[in-house]
Amino acid sequence: MTVSAPLPDDLLINAADEVRIRQDLVLTALGKRPADRLLRVGRLLDVHSRTWLEDQEIVIKGRRIAYVGPAGSFAGEVAERSHEPNLSAVPGFGEAHKHIESSHLTPEWEAALVMPHGVTWTCEASHEFSNVNGARNLEFWLEARRRGSPMKIFPLPGSAVPPTAYEWGGGYFGYDEQKQFMSESLMVAGLDEVMDWPSISDPSNPSYDRLWGMIGATFEQRGVVEGHGAGLRDLASINAFAAAGLASDHEGWFLDEIWQKLQHGLFIELRPHSLPEVIKGLIEKNLADWSQMAFVTDDRSASDTLKMGATDYNVRLAIENGLSPEIAIQCVTLNPARHMRLTPWVGSIAPGRFADIVLLDDVEKLSIAKVWADGTPVSEGRTFTGARPKIDWPEWATKTVKIDRQVTAADFRIEAPAGRATANAALLRPFHWSDEFITMELSVKDGAVQRDHDRNVTKFSIVDRFSGEAKVSKMFWLGTGPRTPDTALGSTLGHDKHNIWVVGSSDEAMAMVANALAEQQGGWVLVSGGRVIARVHYEVGGLMTARSAENLDAEMQALYKAGETIDWMYEPTFSPRWWPGFPERLSFATLTCSPWRWVLVAPSERAPQGFVNVLTGETHPVVW
Amino acid sequence: MTVSAPLPDDLLINAADEVRIRQDLVLTALGKRPADRLLRVGRLLDVHSRTWLEDQEIVIKGRRIAYVGPAGSFAGEVAERSHEPNLSAVPGFGEAHKHIESSHLTPEWEAALVMPHGVTWTCEASHEFSNVNGARNLEFWLEARRRGSPMKIFPLPGSAVPPTAYEWGGGYFGYDEQKQFMSESLMVAGLDEVMDWPSISDPSNPSYDRLWGMIGATFEQRGVVEGHGAGLRDLASINAFAAAGLASDHEGWFLDEIWQKLQHGLFIELRPHSLPEVIKGLIEKNLADWSQMAFVTDDRSASDTLKMGATDYNVRLAIENGLSPEIAIQCVTLNPARHMRLTPWVGSIAPGRFADIVLLDDVEKLSIAKVWADGTPVSEGRTFTGARPKIDWPEWATKTVKIDRQVTAADFRIEAPAGRATANAALLRPFHWSDEFITMELSVKDGAVQRDHDRNVTKFSIVDRFSGEAKVSKMFWLGTGPRTPDTALGSTLGHDKHNIWVVGSSDEAMAMVANALAEQQGGWVLVSGGRVIARVHYEVGGLMTARSAENLDAEMQALYKAGETIDWMYEPTFSPRWWPGFPERLSFATLTCSPWRWVLVAPSERAPQGFVNVLTGETHPVVW
Repeated sequence: MTVSAPLPDDLLINAADEVRIRQDLVLTALGKRPADRLLRVGRLLDVHSRTWLEDQEIVIKGRRIAYVGPAGSFAGEVAERSHEPNLSAVPGFGEAHKHIESSHLTPEWEAALVMPHGVTWTCEASHEFSNVNGARNLEFWLEARRRGSPMKIFPLPGSAVPPTAYEWGGGYFGYDEQKQFMSESLMVAGLDEVMDWPSISDPSNPSYDRLWGMIGATFEQRGVVEGHGAGLRDLASINAFAAAGLASDHEGWFLDEIWQKLQHGLFIELRPHSLPEVIKGLIEKNLADWSQMAFVTDDRSASDTLKMGATDYNVRLAIENGLSPEIAIQCVTLNPARHMRLTPWVGSIAPGRFADIVLLDDVEKLSIAKVWADGTPVSEGRTFTGARPKIDWPEWATKTVKIDRQVTAADFRIEAPAGRATANAALLRPFHWSDEFITMELSVKDGAVQRDHDRNVTKFSIVDRFSGEAKVSKMFWLGTGPRTPDTALGSTLGHDKHNIWVVGSSDEAMAMVANALAEQQGGWVLVSGGRVIARVHYEVGGLMTARSAENLDAEMQALYKAGETIDWMYEPTFSPRWWPGFPERLSFATLTCSPWRWVLVAPSERAPQGFVNVLTGETHPVVW
Repeated sequence: MTVSAPLPDDLLINAADEVRIRQDLVLTALGKRPADRLLRVGRLLDVHSRTWLEDQEIVIKGRRIAYVGPAGSFAGEVAERSHEPNLSAVPGFGEAHKHIESSHLTPEWEAALVMPHGVTWTCEASHEFSNVNGARNLEFWLEARRRGSPMKIFPLPGSAVPPTAYEWGGGYFGYDEQKQFMSESLMVAGLDEVMDWPSISDPSNPSYDRLWGMIGATFEQRGVVEGHGAGLRDLASINAFAAAGLASDHEGWFLDEIWQKLQHGLFIELRPHSLPEVIKGLIEKNLADWSQMAFVTDDRSASDTLKMGATDYNVRLAIENGLSPEIAIQCVTLNPARHMRLTPWVGSIAPGRFADIVLLDDVEKLSIAKVWADGTPVSEGRTFTGARPKIDWPEWATKTVKIDRQVTAADFRIEAPAGRATANAALLRPFHWSDEFITMELSVKDGAVQRDHDRNVTKFSIVDRFSGEAKVSKMFWLGTGPRTPDTALGSTLGHDKHNIWVVGSSDEAMAMVANALAEQQGGWVLVSGGRVIARVHYEVGGLMTARSAENLDAEMQALYKAGETIDWMYEPTFSPRWWPGFPERLSFATLTCSPWRWVLVAPSERAPQGFVNVLTGETHPVVW
């Protein structure tokens, strides 16, 4: 063992480097080798015993913690000392479940946004980018860290690639792919949210073998299988979900549901929308052991993070609803780290872990003064001061909207059955989770079935962005999209397959949106009166952009502002998170996972018109 | 996926079977396939939320739990129903750290002993048998389960194979071996207690690369690295220990030490001897989060288990010392399962887990009425009623004392320096943890240095049982062994290398002990007056026996009784667990791990006379 060899860069975790780094940490802790830095703090939260320790020093070597003890107790040599007598140190925050794609920032810019909010590690639920370029998934998520970003991203390959057997293009993950991911990097902690419940619970589902293959490959290498139990609230389904080996759920909405899931062995990951009610309810139930609970963000746009905060917002919300700050902090540190089997690296201020420390000037308010990561300061107030590598993302990341032709208005025409003055049409609403689709009789003009704005009916379409052929599926939707004539909105952000979706009051406007999105390689496009009136650029994967949150937010605000000039239809639906106004959440309304039934996907082998019930595999004409 | 194919036997966990078993459980939970059994209980402890649920039913398929819910809630078909309205169900107990070898029973007989005490799973700290036959380690530990034993043994390959660089024979584990173990079976949860602290903390230690290689191989496959922090109580060492990536400690003796270790991120495994003081102390400190705590047995003989109990004894002790029964039960169920990353299989009464259930008729007293494992009853009161496979252990397990010659009295003679009437001798006491050995001037007779019974000095020897040559090391020890003339005691149970140790008042008696142990292939032999006056047979690995605990205990009692006829020397030493009388604990006095310094090992390349300081590698003549 060559003692004097330079230490590994300690960016991406691997077992061989781990040995050399820890060999050095042992000697540093014992005072036999000099340490790099010492941070003395007013007090420190030990999350293992949930106790505050007064006047502590944290000794750092490289990016890691070598020693923690009372001020003055470390006997070794230290190159550099800092003292924060008035600040309270807690571990860097982490998340067991987050789609960074939903920030719409590339990882290096995500770090700059969320690290001042205390977030130093994230289990990246990577099925968005995976659905765009599955083969490059790990490479994409690890690149920023490889180049020195202080944020630790642990990518979990998505099970939803493709989301259902009725979708295609961009990526395909099965047993072989997951086996490869798990063996390629220790940063891969497991398999991300298993979303397609029919493919787990119904042996006749065409994705059954693919999904179970990924689960098997994850077990094989001692990884964690994350779940997604949306809408699974009856006792039989909760039991079946746990029996499948899905270890967690972040989709609980109601106290009783979450209580049942907790008691059936699922690790509970709470999102803000249900957090207040659930925290209050659990406190009322006298829950005394919170070790199976974490708080997660799941999806949050950069704009929302600028307004609300990141994981710190979740913690604050929990404290405001009655949880002690110390337990709330455990829910974003030790608890998720232990659940994800990442305790050797993150989750506490303890030797061997990365030196990721959040310094609070007010614990009750979770007011963050400074954040350290990798043993150095990365923020001062809201300002990110850490390393942000400049990455010119290669073409495999930036040329992902593959459309080799002009899309035309004719692509969106819905032909009526011959010789009919009206036609029956199948309709969906956004977040329509019913077993049955809606039917309406619509008028026919020039052989084509027509929108009916008076009855809140518009046209919705999915344009394939993977084959080059721009295969188009289309149907009528209820209660969404522009009533304003000659107007269409679309995006390459369309969970989880991320084809282009377009909703519009004219076929011409819809075609213009699709072509503009192809031309700019992703983002949002709003067309009205024959011209593009707003654009947002997501040039990376059609999902993210490599620039600051503020810069992106300015573009989003311009889109919202342009959106205010449009008259948007509205109709309530199942989702409590579906509001009137600019229909930004249409990007989630294209989901096909549980609890969806009837959906519109790009034309596929199993659903040539794209209209399919993902629970049963049944297809149906969109008009007849 | 062939739905109608027979299900796997579900004995040894592997990923492929796991998929098929869980596919079936999902359909069973949903009521789409019939369940085998339903156990309705008066109440059930959910360890995730630490709450009691009244009148619950546990639905079983194969060996697993498919469904848990209020009585009457399961809609599916059930073949067989049981009802225990007056019993309280808690999960089967498990241990994060136990040497089954210390029961001296083979795994199928261990199961029969401890399962009526609620123990249904064990993380086997396998370095004892590994030191005897390392190559067959996994095969040995999995054999009983493979043949249907309801006990789940998760073998952790021992890091102490060999215990130090000064020992040899029987087995050698390094990076390659651990890599192979980890990939061979999912039952292997990680690397067992890293004991040789100098080999971790001192780069010049000859075992440094071997030990760190095993740690690296464990990290590589997402395993848990267990620690052994005996005597490491100063803050620098505790920090270094945690920094090394050693995830736990079960060697804490004192409250302050354990408190420090807990706060430095180590998972705490408490043994009974320190448990009362520590539990009381932690309660006094208002510890509110016990999720990083477990109770373990480590070493307990079958005789002691018959008297005290198994893991249930630990739980009872914790309750008696003020811990709530529910937290105490978490410390032997969810907490260790989560730490060892075994929650998909054990640790709670929840779907997907093995149907291992302890039925209590008094929770406060932890009074165990019945135990179920693998979904069927395995005990009624203290009587084991489960499957006990009949195993004819093969020669690789039963012929492990390899001595190809007669050992003679001359082997134990300690030659004096030429022409001297007295000689200086190096002495040890059992559990002598001092940096310096003891020296005394002893008389010489016929050219050989002599014992001095009046000064409590006897002769102690290690006889190699691996090479066939019976290499013998010997020296004088203080305060142990027989004062009665012509008497010697020896055993093949000599932690952790398990050579033969012999202590005796005459060289002839010592030779007779060594030959008798070779002849009977291990166990204990007591010789006095020219004949063997007691024997205990450990015919498997020289450590265990394939028969009932009661049968073995009878033999042990006969040994103790014969031992009462002997006058045993005594001298206090470092260990609070070293008592006057029959020196049974000499089998632990041959340890070489931390915190030992000077030890006697079999003659080895690095220590030709066998007398070596394992901390520094220094050797010394035994007389001069």
